[in-house]
Amino acid sequence: MNRINFEQATDFLTGCEDVYILIHRNPDGDCIGAGYSLQAVLRSLGKRAKVLCSDPIPERFAFLLPETNEEPDFPAKTIISVDVADEKLLGDLEECYAGKIQLCIDHHVSNRFYAENVLLDEHAAAACEILYKLYRYMNICFTEQIAKCLFTGMSTDTGCFKFDNTTPETHIYTAELMREFPNVRYGLINRQMFDVKSPARIKAEMAMLSQMEYYLDEECTMIWATLQICKENQVHESDLEGLTALSLQPESVEVGITLREREPGVYKVSMRSAKDVNVSAICQQFGGGGHIKAAGCLIRGSREEVTEKLIRAVEKAL
Amino acid sequence: MNRINFEQATDFLTGCEDVYILIHRNPDGDCIGAGYSLQAVLRSLGKRAKVLCSDPIPERFAFLLPETNEEPDFPAKTIISVDVADEKLLGDLEECYAGKIQLCIDHHVSNRFYAENVLLDEHAAAACEILYKLYRYMNICFTEQIAKCLFTGMSTDTGCFKFDNTTPETHIYTAELMREFPNVRYGLINRQMFDVKSPARIKAEMAMLSQMEYYLDEECTMIWATLQICKENQVHESDLEGLTALSLQPESVEVGITLREREPGVYKVSMRSAKDVNVSAICQQFGGGGHIKAAGCLIRGSREEVTEKLIRAVEKAL
Repeated sequence: MNRINFEQATDFLTGCEDVYILIHRNPDGDCIGAGYSLQAVLRSLGKRAKVLCSDPIPERFAFLLPETNEEPDFPAKTIISVDVADEKLLGDLEECYAGKIQLCIDHHVSNRFYAENVLLDEHAAAACEILYKLYRYMNICFTEQIAKCLFTGMSTDTGCFKFDNTTPETHIYTAELMREFPNVRYGLINRQMFDVKSPARIKAEMAMLSQMEYYLDEECTMIWATLQICKENQVHESDLEGLTALSLQPESVEVGITLREREPGVYKVSMRSAKDVNVSAICQQFGGGGHIKAAGCLIRGSREEVTEKLIRAVEKAL
Repeated sequence: MNRINFEQATDFLTGCEDVYILIHRNPDGDCIGAGYSLQAVLRSLGKRAKVLCSDPIPERFAFLLPETNEEPDFPAKTIISVDVADEKLLGDLEECYAGKIQLCIDHHVSNRFYAENVLLDEHAAAACEILYKLYRYMNICFTEQIAKCLFTGMSTDTGCFKFDNTTPETHIYTAELMREFPNVRYGLINRQMFDVKSPARIKAEMAMLSQMEYYLDEECTMIWATLQICKENQVHESDLEGLTALSLQPESVEVGITLREREPGVYKVSMRSAKDVNVSAICQQFGGGGHIKAAGCLIRGSREEVTEKLIRAVEKAL
């Protein structure tokens, strides 16, 4: 594994050919923005490139995709991952591409250094923040699509510039995009990303909030998106993104835990830190990881067992 | 009335003495940040200055106040208002100070030009954005308190950089504050401003959301914070700030209306526009005003009458 810098990444990207860009399963605004901006940049350099994801891109991110995405299929000569901390996060793509990734561009402190070359900046708020800087370094000519991709990645990964991971650069790059592309409706993008909720989602939130559980002197909350609640409210997986914010609403909270039941007895855990607890370290104990203030893992067991394990781990960290 | 520029405002502020700074009733992050930053700046110039508000400053803004606020009382020689579009918004201070305001610094498109001198930038996202620029123009030496005030004003008035009113300058100035004062916990300020909710507030939100009303093909929503709901959930006026965002959650919405019952039959109306409707123009029909996408007014009548009037006005604007 080589940790590379911008000069080396530029050499790599200008020298590569026929690129598959892998993004993580259950894709979010940052990996989608990173993946499709990189596709656009590589195409502008005359290369063939496509984005691969194990899961479909949710409809609300459709505006980030190129207008014409049709291109004859081609075999990969180069495989790049963006915003993927661990090959496990590739979902169904893992089997085919694990061990073959030549470049990983990422900002997760929990990156596993699985790729041949790694461009990692764990202080960047988003993979899109690294890419913004890299494209400028490469003198790429930005398009409106690239601007929307990078803005959306930075905005979504910082909770709309709200979280502690927001850097001065996040703001500066955003301002530069706004100045260069004043006609993009940034406010409407944010509205779609953060404010719009389906009626089912609104109902589900109320159901989950009303059953929020408090532990450890109210310093830890748990919200359960059980299969039952989701079924009763006709909520789909894609409706649940951003749900994690609910767990941090009470003022007393240090760690908020949201559990989505994937299948009976299997929970996708999203952990958020309100102030100073390193939840990436907690999630790593369960084979997960992420950022210091936002991390996740997968955990199995009965509701009681899962609660017991998680609360004990949080208690140690407090 | 003189509309003045930065040079004239600088002359005014460096030449004035014994200043009362008036902010609007029901104070929010922007007027509090503007008022207390101006107090700090004037004090740094060796002047006496105090901030006056008809309502108490909510506890969660206490971190913006100077550490020692005790100062012998003094009579005003200069009266300045910040973030006050209309003298009516001074609340109980109106009676004493209306007609006597020598300088108004504001960013509301609905400003009534009631002051002798007006420094107005209706394109600025916040009064604090104007003041940031003005203080730099004046070569003021910033302190951490001033930085927190200006950051909080810009962040709160843009919904944490989410709304369409956010300008490239909002982001640039924020980045500059973050770079100059890296030890301020901006993420924690945002958490206090946007995420933390009292248990009563959480309960009240659920009650109000579950009774959200849809009108005009679901393009208009109404949320009623009635005296009854507030009493049942032990919610206070100060718990209700930011509640207006709820009304814009459904994807179909163009105009979201939140009504807080002040006393039986008297409603404080907050109107929000999701995309392109000018709600300031609608609220002006009822004697109110504000920004294009966020405005308010006071309206009297039975719930049915109020609904009828507002829905009719919104229908015309759609």
